[in-house]
Amino acid sequence: MSTQLSMERKKALLDIFGEQDCLFTPEELLVYTTDASRISGEPLATVRATSEEQIVALMRWATREKIPVYPRARATNTMGGCAPTTPGIVLSLLKMNAILEIDEHDFVVVTQPGVITKDLQKAVEAKGLMYPPDPASFDVCTIGGNIATCAGGMSAVKYGVTRDYLLATRVVLPNGTVAVFGARTHKNVVGLDVNRLLCGSEGTLGVITEMTLKLIPLPEASASILVGFDSLKAAMDCVRNVFATGILPCALEFIGEQCLKPIAQMGHDIFPAGVTTCLLIKLDGAKDTLAPQIDKLMRVVEPMRPAFLRKGLTREDEEELWTVRRLINAGSALVAPNKIADDVTVPRSRLHEALKGIDAVGQRSGLTVLTFGHVGDGNIHVNIMFDAATQQDIATKAKLEINELIISLRGVLSGEHGIGLSKAKTFRLQIGEVEQNLMRGIKAVFDPDNIMNPGKSY
Amino acid sequence: MSTQLSMERKKALLDIFGEQDCLFTPEELLVYTTDASRISGEPLATVRATSEEQIVALMRWATREKIPVYPRARATNTMGGCAPTTPGIVLSLLKMNAILEIDEHDFVVVTQPGVITKDLQKAVEAKGLMYPPDPASFDVCTIGGNIATCAGGMSAVKYGVTRDYLLATRVVLPNGTVAVFGARTHKNVVGLDVNRLLCGSEGTLGVITEMTLKLIPLPEASASILVGFDSLKAAMDCVRNVFATGILPCALEFIGEQCLKPIAQMGHDIFPAGVTTCLLIKLDGAKDTLAPQIDKLMRVVEPMRPAFLRKGLTREDEEELWTVRRLINAGSALVAPNKIADDVTVPRSRLHEALKGIDAVGQRSGLTVLTFGHVGDGNIHVNIMFDAATQQDIATKAKLEINELIISLRGVLSGEHGIGLSKAKTFRLQIGEVEQNLMRGIKAVFDPDNIMNPGKSY
Repeated sequence: MSTQLSMERKKALLDIFGEQDCLFTPEELLVYTTDASRISGEPLATVRATSEEQIVALMRWATREKIPVYPRARATNTMGGCAPTTPGIVLSLLKMNAILEIDEHDFVVVTQPGVITKDLQKAVEAKGLMYPPDPASFDVCTIGGNIATCAGGMSAVKYGVTRDYLLATRVVLPNGTVAVFGARTHKNVVGLDVNRLLCGSEGTLGVITEMTLKLIPLPEASASILVGFDSLKAAMDCVRNVFATGILPCALEFIGEQCLKPIAQMGHDIFPAGVTTCLLIKLDGAKDTLAPQIDKLMRVVEPMRPAFLRKGLTREDEEELWTVRRLINAGSALVAPNKIADDVTVPRSRLHEALKGIDAVGQRSGLTVLTFGHVGDGNIHVNIMFDAATQQDIATKAKLEINELIISLRGVLSGEHGIGLSKAKTFRLQIGEVEQNLMRGIKAVFDPDNIMNPGKSY
Repeated sequence: MSTQLSMERKKALLDIFGEQDCLFTPEELLVYTTDASRISGEPLATVRATSEEQIVALMRWATREKIPVYPRARATNTMGGCAPTTPGIVLSLLKMNAILEIDEHDFVVVTQPGVITKDLQKAVEAKGLMYPPDPASFDVCTIGGNIATCAGGMSAVKYGVTRDYLLATRVVLPNGTVAVFGARTHKNVVGLDVNRLLCGSEGTLGVITEMTLKLIPLPEASASILVGFDSLKAAMDCVRNVFATGILPCALEFIGEQCLKPIAQMGHDIFPAGVTTCLLIKLDGAKDTLAPQIDKLMRVVEPMRPAFLRKGLTREDEEELWTVRRLINAGSALVAPNKIADDVTVPRSRLHEALKGIDAVGQRSGLTVLTFGHVGDGNIHVNIMFDAATQQDIATKAKLEINELIISLRGVLSGEHGIGLSKAKTFRLQIGEVEQNLMRGIKAVFDPDNIMNPGKSY
């Protein structure tokens, strides 16, 4: 396939997007060759859409010319979901970044895809409302990407994930037709739920140009505790007991033993010797309901004899506690130059087994494997740390062993990141032939020419 | 098309299901000709499955013979979703009624489709857990039907609908292949979300034989208030103010003026003269958080000067308040012999306009139109009461006018019941050609011979 656009094709793109928003030179295209996965391809051009009409024109042209189109915004995807692996046109949606409407009576926000998730959250909070999904990258990623991957986050344990908030989508289909699925209402059972099929489809079915999201009342306040244990088992027993008591935290985060050293090296050396595992537990709600909730939590946690326990009852104290969680990513760079980041998920009762098994893989391979994440819903972030110069094969093998372990525990390969390219090889561990064929059949209904972010996921 | 089964076809069914579970005579088949909609068809036979293997054999045979199959359990569907309108085989799933597993650590229940929703709820409550979706028919309908229609209910305003709890499905495809979608984990973004596409598909894509549902901790307690206003506007202002204060009730029900007379006739004459509209507001949570929540609610409701206000703070008092809501259906029979039951939904800010408009349609047509339902999420039950002997055309016209009104207010034709046959004619008011074609394209991927509950919905 040609990696160079003919003059005629360049002209077609220029006619749609104008000189300002068409990029053709290698220098301009460099940033569009990859995403946060560092898996790279070779875009023929990048176009920056400012309107749905332009996307309609682009997709009509791409269908005629049988040229792949790769939508993206901030490209924070760590699985290669945005990488243009076969030559095609990268479609940037970053300029379509208007919040069109926030309605504090209907509890909805209508937005374009290029809005940064954090900006959207701040805007609705200013009206006393909340958009709960909070992927770790929320201050850099966009809401369009969140829809494409069905992003999760820490609050999913209580509030669910992106799909639970997606009420309606406007989408440009690969042939250039505009379709609208869902509605502005919170309830809707009219026809097949194509709206939520789009959520998590990783850009393979169409280009979402507008979305309507459900909002909920903003909780008045929150409080957190940070608790350290001398064993993984004690921490996992604590998780179990919290839920058994009927407490539904709005975050229940776990920080594994291998993370604590780099966190200390980052200057945050707060734990007494012997603490090997931490939990961060956050509760939210109406102001005067928080104290009784925290008391109830304490009645679960204290009998577990934690080696460390600190409460954050004011906003400031709470922020301080969460520093330890925020330092993991930066700290991981101190461990090794490269990482394979995974986000496996298991049923909650299998967490202890899963974490022990992942540790064992780390020990056998001689690599440091960091584990942390959203244990409230069984979602474990696994960072296999290694030096690509000498340990690539060992790391790849360790990843496969961890994925096989997770499947044997009735878990799934991804709770948040999706499949993209990075997990395409292990996808078949979880999804059978029959199910894959149905997924591909559905794609063919939307995208008979396979031009919409081809080669990704299923 | 023949309405009689050949001996050869009878034998094929007998070979799969045995004499005990094959029904062929008109007398035996009578109950299977219709569902709660009273729309009827003519089944060629009814078979009662006791295992997935039988369903696999049935669907292979039906694919070879190109004979439609109509799955059902309790057939409480009011839209004709179960009616065998072209001659085919009715597949009863009532005997597949085992709760296979309740896991109080994983917060999941694994169940067969024929379990009564109330039985499932009681079973998980015994373990301190909650399955929130609560369609009004929960004590007679089945969980399989709830999945097929994406059932809602009163608690949806806080807890969401069936799709928000469906983690995994085993499904026999129309060609007899078994597929598994989703997983036991609460988070999962691996491949297209076919699992939730099945939810609300009204039996048109396959036969669901097993499902895994997410559970949450059972709230410790609840409390309710019943409040009456002298105008619709005051009641709707109250709804608005409740949400504006950040209160998220676990039910917010509305009872319209036309309902109050039959409720009084049923012997429940509790309201002072002048009360034309009621709201039932229920809050739930941990025991010691309820009192402050009710106080906060009172600070919203009392300044609205309601004409009637009663609190139910104990279980017994609360039950008593809800009697008024439970009498609506029985009371409606006192109004007229026939009804068209609709379940339109609008954005919450359009409720007042919608309810006023529906009243106006009632007045113009000379028919009594009862309105009540889940105004917390904009979902209005509309019962057009009439005498079929003389008023069928007037009632049909009123229904169409109401549907057109709802669409003009950016609402949807159904929040809970689905489309089935009853709404097939008005479906196009909401769903365009492009969207319908995509839905039909997806169906064709699952069901190329169109034998799976044909003629329903999209």
